[in-house]
Amino acid sequence: MLETLAPRVERVIGRLPRRVFVLTSPAIWALWGETFCASFREAPMALFLPAGEKYKNMASVERLAREMLRAGADRGSLLIAFGGGIVGDVGGFLAAVFMRGIPYVQVPTTFLAQVDSSVGGKTGVNLPEGKNMVGSFHQPRAVFADIGVLGTLPERELKAGLMESVKAGIIRDRALVRFMEENVHAIVGRDPKALEKVIAASIRMKAGVVTKDERDTGLRMILNLGHTVGHAIEQATRYKALLHGEAVGWGMVAALYLARKRGTISGAQFERLEKLIYLYGPLPVLKVRAAKVVAATGADKKNVGGVRRFVLPLGIGDAGVVEDVSPAELEAAVRYMLGKAVVSG
Amino acid sequence: MLETLAPRVERVIGRLPRRVFVLTSPAIWALWGETFCASFREAPMALFLPAGEKYKNMASVERLAREMLRAGADRGSLLIAFGGGIVGDVGGFLAAVFMRGIPYVQVPTTFLAQVDSSVGGKTGVNLPEGKNMVGSFHQPRAVFADIGVLGTLPERELKAGLMESVKAGIIRDRALVRFMEENVHAIVGRDPKALEKVIAASIRMKAGVVTKDERDTGLRMILNLGHTVGHAIEQATRYKALLHGEAVGWGMVAALYLARKRGTISGAQFERLEKLIYLYGPLPVLKVRAAKVVAATGADKKNVGGVRRFVLPLGIGDAGVVEDVSPAELEAAVRYMLGKAVVSG
Repeated sequence: MLETLAPRVERVIGRLPRRVFVLTSPAIWALWGETFCASFREAPMALFLPAGEKYKNMASVERLAREMLRAGADRGSLLIAFGGGIVGDVGGFLAAVFMRGIPYVQVPTTFLAQVDSSVGGKTGVNLPEGKNMVGSFHQPRAVFADIGVLGTLPERELKAGLMESVKAGIIRDRALVRFMEENVHAIVGRDPKALEKVIAASIRMKAGVVTKDERDTGLRMILNLGHTVGHAIEQATRYKALLHGEAVGWGMVAALYLARKRGTISGAQFERLEKLIYLYGPLPVLKVRAAKVVAATGADKKNVGGVRRFVLPLGIGDAGVVEDVSPAELEAAVRYMLGKAVVSG
Repeated sequence: MLETLAPRVERVIGRLPRRVFVLTSPAIWALWGETFCASFREAPMALFLPAGEKYKNMASVERLAREMLRAGADRGSLLIAFGGGIVGDVGGFLAAVFMRGIPYVQVPTTFLAQVDSSVGGKTGVNLPEGKNMVGSFHQPRAVFADIGVLGTLPERELKAGLMESVKAGIIRDRALVRFMEENVHAIVGRDPKALEKVIAASIRMKAGVVTKDERDTGLRMILNLGHTVGHAIEQATRYKALLHGEAVGWGMVAALYLARKRGTISGAQFERLEKLIYLYGPLPVLKVRAAKVVAATGADKKNVGGVRRFVLPLGIGDAGVVEDVSPAELEAAVRYMLGKAVVSG
């Protein structure tokens, strides 16, 4: 698909503007830059974001906006975010605030970005105090996901991304849960048919939820299953030890424990779903204290007025939000999770 | 009005949230902080932005977002921007991007902010390459303009702000042009009735235009009369020599010259409107080369696809946009303006 990108983009936005920018990482560009440019009459101007969560910050957005200005970007310019979730989040935010907003297109290159972060228009960067604390809602004009580029994705990243598909199944799609239980080897082995099925189901689920709640004021919150504790883990380990999907995997374990204790899922459902998470493991061992993780959940964006909000599964294929999780209850769930995380999942 | 702010805000947004933040300047807060807080059950937490265009940048937004996070801000928090145009622009942008958007209220304290920048939802910060190059459209929930606080405003700032009212008259309101011609002493002398009339007419004009074109894709562009050259002057003098309104005043002189040359206004109209600008002067002397100003217009946000867009008056009380101004034509207008600006207006 990548080699025919320009006409595909034109089908969505009309004639390409004079200036097309592509935000990407040096590694992605080295692998795919030539293919990417093949269909453009004039090669887009490449802007680079080094790999790593530490560059997902305000300073990068400022530097990139300045580079665009110096290269003659204006309000009619188009930005294409070509890379993983970080490139997509930073690129989307850059497009949201550059001259108060220019159009952009997502071309995600990781499994995680294809099934999750490229869809939905959430953009943003991190602050030292927390992830995605500064950002915008800015919908891409289109998302083009090419399964072909996943061939170069490290297995660890593929598996981490699959945690978002596990999440998609748990909160909205029983059939996806079953498919992922029964096809582990095909999926992890990157069988194109199996991957396409998982990606399509994940995107369909997310697009359906986002369409109903673009600004994240209600239903969309269920997409955060595993993310409250997941973000806290990432923050407590300073974004260094785990990939985002891996942190979400552990976060889902904590959420499942809470749900079982509250009775929103049965013991059998708990075991089945926990096992599904580990099927796409192993998740990295966690070296962090429970109290630190609990404290870090206090800064979650989902909290309003000091109330800690949690997404819990309601059986398999449904989820809801609870607001009355006590610190003790949360700490028990985190301790359970950390117990599993010592020997690894 | 300031001493009854809290109930006024609650009438618009409902019950105040747990955390209310006020972004202000140290000088404004020293003068009016106590009055501001009088009507709040719990004093809002003050965040400070030092005076000056040089703090209108990404670094300030980042610092303020971090301070808010450390003080427990969440998605339900309210931000009040209490100060001049820079506080309003930075506060609005901070509210636009903090956790992807929180509500905010404008309480402008300068004449310029009251008649112009607080209305319309344009927020943003500067880059070294240009003014307001990074920002968002984010409408305040309400704008509260208290004429009482203008008593402490330096006369130079009042006069600079009045340039936006002159602009309002030229592009949309013949009656305002006449009123400002006939009541210079009452207006500059801060006669409350005269000021209120000018402020109300200016806000009415702007709100009317913005309501028809919130995202600035058409009609709203006429609000930029005098701003293309005005921004270029500010940039060429590194935002140090002139107040924004003063730069717009000079920019309008250049626009009037262009309009007369093109015949969209008559010689008599040209003289009348140029005189009106100087009535609210003197505008500061300009020490800058014409070529530098012309070059700086190239980076204007209104330009799309490399075309320089200019707003020109069409008679008195109407304006339009032209896209075919040649560099030579522009340079002649800038030279005319600089000729006037040597002896001062």
